[in-house]
Order: sequence, then C-alpha cells, then structure tokens
Amino acid sequence: MTVTFPTGVFCAATTPFNADLSVDQGLFAAHCQRLLDDGCIGIAMLGTTGEANSLSSSERKSLLEAVVKSGIAPKKLLPGTGVASIMETVELTQHALANGVNTVVMLPPYYYKGVSDDGIVDAYTTIIERINDPRLRVVLYHIPQMSAVPISLDVIDRLIKRFPDTVVGIKDSSGDFSNMSAIVERFPGFSVLVGADPLMLKLLPMGGAGCITATSNLVGGDLTTVFNGYNDPSKAAEVAAAQERIVAGRNAVSTYAQLPSLKVLLARQYGNDGWMRVRPPLVGLSAAEADAVRASFAA
Amino acid sequence: MTVTFPTGVFCAATTPFNADLSVDQGLFAAHCQRLLDDGCIGIAMLGTTGEANSLSSSERKSLLEAVVKSGIAPKKLLPGTGVASIMETVELTQHALANGVNTVVMLPPYYYKGVSDDGIVDAYTTIIERINDPRLRVVLYHIPQMSAVPISLDVIDRLIKRFPDTVVGIKDSSGDFSNMSAIVERFPGFSVLVGADPLMLKLLPMGGAGCITATSNLVGGDLTTVFNGYNDPSKAAEVAAAQERIVAGRNAVSTYAQLPSLKVLLARQYGNDGWMRVRPPLVGLSAAEADAVRASFAA
Repeated sequence: MTVTFPTGVFCAATTPFNADLSVDQGLFAAHCQRLLDDGCIGIAMLGTTGEANSLSSSERKSLLEAVVKSGIAPKKLLPGTGVASIMETVELTQHALANGVNTVVMLPPYYYKGVSDDGIVDAYTTIIERINDPRLRVVLYHIPQMSAVPISLDVIDRLIKRFPDTVVGIKDSSGDFSNMSAIVERFPGFSVLVGADPLMLKLLPMGGAGCITATSNLVGGDLTTVFNGYNDPSKAAEVAAAQERIVAGRNAVSTYAQLPSLKVLLARQYGNDGWMRVRPPLVGLSAAEADAVRASFAA
Repeated sequence: MTVTFPTGVFCAATTPFNADLSVDQGLFAAHCQRLLDDGCIGIAMLGTTGEANSLSSSERKSLLEAVVKSGIAPKKLLPGTGVASIMETVELTQHALANGVNTVVMLPPYYYKGVSDDGIVDAYTTIIERINDPRLRVVLYHIPQMSAVPISLDVIDRLIKRFPDTVVGIKDSSGDFSNMSAIVERFPGFSVLVGADPLMLKLLPMGGAGCITATSNLVGGDLTTVFNGYNDPSKAAEVAAAQERIVAGRNAVSTYAQLPSLKVLLARQYGNDGWMRVRPPLVGLSAAEADAVRASFAA
C-alpha cells in the first residue's frame, strides 16, 4: 500500500512581518511562489516555523485568503489549523475548506499537559465530526518539544481506524528517527512527513512520504532533488551533493535559535532586512550571531 | 509597602458546559454569584481551571459579557486574557477593559518553548504598550506545569520597573513555596496570589496577598475565614478548622485529574450532573473514580 497524498517536499514557510509586526501578506505570497518555483510540491503555511501560534485567528484567516488570492492553488496549501481550543480549530479548518484547501496540518490542543491518549483522540474526533466534511484531509502534527503534547502510535492507530479517509498522515517533527520509522512500518499507506530535513533521505526508502521542513525555505530545490532521485542509482552523486547542502543548511540554522536564524538567511537572500523581524516571544539574533549564521551558511 | 490590590480570595471559577459542549453561560453566572456569596472577593474566570484555553476567543468574550450582564460588578472579575498569540491577548484584554474590567490574569504566550527572559519581557511589553490604557492592571500568571513557560524573578523585576502602575501582581501556581516566598520578599507591595489553596495560610504572614485557586469553587468560605482571621489569635481555632477542610478538599480533588474531580463535586453540590462535562482534551472521571472522589470529599 503506497502513500498517495500528501507526498513530496512541503515547505514550512516562514512569515515576514512589517515594522509594526503586522503580517506582510504580499511578501509572504511572493515567498510561497518562490518556494514552488524552487520545486516544493506545496506550502505548509501557518506552522511552527511560520510563527502561526503567534498570530490571531483573524490574521491566520486573512493570510490564507491573501495567498489564495495571489494565485497559488489552494490544493498546494497545507495550512496549520490546530490551536489550543478545539472549537477554534474547527473554525480555522472550516475556513480553510471554504477557501479551497483540503489538507490541513493539525496540532493537538496544546495548553493542557499530561492529557491522556483518550483525551487526544476525543479532541481530534470532536474536531473532525464537527467539521463533518468529506473533503477534509488531516495531517496530525507531532512536535512534542513545542506542543508538549505528543501523539502516540496508539492515538494514530485509533484515529486511522475511526477516520480512514480523513486522517491521512503525520508530520513528525520530534527528530526521533525511531518514532518516524515505527509509524511508517506500522501504518502502510499512511503519509509520514519528516520534520527534520536531513532525515528525509533515510526515511524515504522505508516508505516515508516526504517532508515538511523549515530549512526548505532555503534549500527546497535540494530537498526536491533528494525526493525525486533517492532511488535512482544514476542520480546518486546529484542526490549526495544535495543532501550535503541540506545538512549544511540545517546546521547553519541550528547553532542559534532556528527560526530567527532562518530569517537572517532569508533577509540576505532577498536583500530585505525586514525579513529578520520575529514576533515576541521569539527574539531576533544579535548582530554577531547573525554574522555567524551568514558565514556558516555561505561556507 | 503593603499590597493594595488584588488581595483576598479569588476563585478560579470552573466553566459548565451544555450537552453540545457549548458554554452554559447562565449556570456559570449563577455559580459566580454563589462564589461571591461564599465570601470570595472576586472571580478569576477564564483561567486554567475554567478551561479557558479550550474556549475560542469569541466564546471567552461572550461569557464575560454574560457575567457582567447578569449583574456581577466587572471590578470583581479578574478574567484570564493571555493566549498563545500576543495580538489575540491584546484583543481579549481590550475587550475586558471595554466591559468595565480593570484587572486581568495574563499567561505569557505559551506555544513556543525555551524562549528567553528577553522574549517574555518583549511579549508583555508589546501587549501592554499596544493596549496603552491607564486603567489596565496585569496579574502575571506563572504555571510552568501547564504553560511550560515559567516567569522568572528577573522577568518580574524588569516588568515592575517598566510598568510600575500596571504590572501589579502574579498568580503563582507552581506549587513551589520557595518561589512564591522569594517573590514576596524581593518585591514588597507586589501582589502574590497563591495558586495552591493550602499554601495561602503559610504565605499570608510573609506578605502574600491572597489566592486564586481551584478548590475555592468548593471551599471559598473556608479560604475566606483563613484570609480574614490568620493574624487574629482569637480566631486561631476557627482558622485551623477551616484550613483542615481546605487541605481535605484539595486532597479530594488531587487523587485523579483535578479539574474533572472538581466538576464531579460541583455536580453533587448543585444536584446537576451536567456540571461533570469537560471539554476535550480533558476527560471526565470514570464512575469508580467519581465515587472515590465523592467519598473522599464527604469524609
């Protein structure tokens, strides 16, 4: 049973801000188009890397509408819609569906900690049943280092059995390869999207479906090269070179805080220092840190 | 320098739900009135115990409006307004001010983890400056076991210096007595409200300002007895008896998940099983657990 969708390289697109910290929608839409031009199959906008959890619901909706209006096909968008309140998750997901999106990446409700698997299954079940839309496709989002609410294999199992046509995949951002490979092995046909760029190459031969990553804001072309060529011996050298750049890119943004580092490099790439802005509680890099990140990436 | 406000026993009021999981606003307003009748000085509605983080922004606003409309003085309300997005926190706080509330309990933005003190100070600063309203009083909310974003003494220090008339207190729900006593000692005149009922009696003589607690949904009268009488030797026996009931009440709701346990006891008190409903990701107690909680509280 092969994975049908979502597969490929999806970019966890970063979100640029104006000087007053409002979202620069035009710049974001242009960035999304460039990511598609780089080879990304789609845009996982409004995720952790996109600082979505620092946006209000109305800002999220408005940004999604702006991207669709800019001409990007809604089917290429995998917006994050999972927030702390399941009722607000329902509302954001319905809004995405109303704008032509089918597939969303959904965090579990993440305020209450130490909740049971029953509670997480209840939450997703309530959300999906309230939306009650046959078009909906849900990618679960496992990022315990941020959400502090892990999604266990048992939760996945119960949700797939209950909603086989709706719960189609998971973004595993744990960085724990044993977890992602266990999911791939246990749930054939379920889309496992790697959250840590360098691990995609390792998971693809086992049945991994692709990735949703932060570094793809910079190396989307290389990730696409790896995705398209990993099982073609004639492309081994090309894939190895791309993988090397991916690993280097990931390292360059991992010495200091990842998201501000990524924005420093996007600012350089676009020649626009406005890209460096982050929303509190994130903090931008110091000048010395930014220099170090630029030097590391250039090398 | 004595603490002026907020001081006293504030109840972290629980939120009842209808069968369709919508908020039962009428039942909640009646519950708030009973808490005031019990002796609570005010209602810290829309907090962790109130499952506020499982409500959408529009549900939060609507509930606050309903309580004010029911006749409870807005100055008796300390609603929680801190959410993951600082922009949404601004919006919720402005809404509270527009409804006659002055004092809010404000979580730091709680999605991104491992953020620096600079980031937390930036977040509160941005929120307070954007609201820019001299009426505003902020009680910081330190509950690291849920938010996973602790508020350090250094953050408190910087915020008090920057906003001496606005940042007036902290709810410390860490359960770590050394932390609350350190705050009391270092910041005279700053309101430290205990989140764990049994500790109020211990902190009051050191300069503690009172409490915002979950168990006060059940034992608000006893907490008020302790608050009013702790330094009056003629009331020592009365205070000791009240404290004993407080500790027993707290223990009764601490064997299983606290909030569902509390709701089981409120359901019994009001003779209304609807009170037992919780919103996912929380899960209600099993029948056997509920029996055990009722038996423990009765004893």
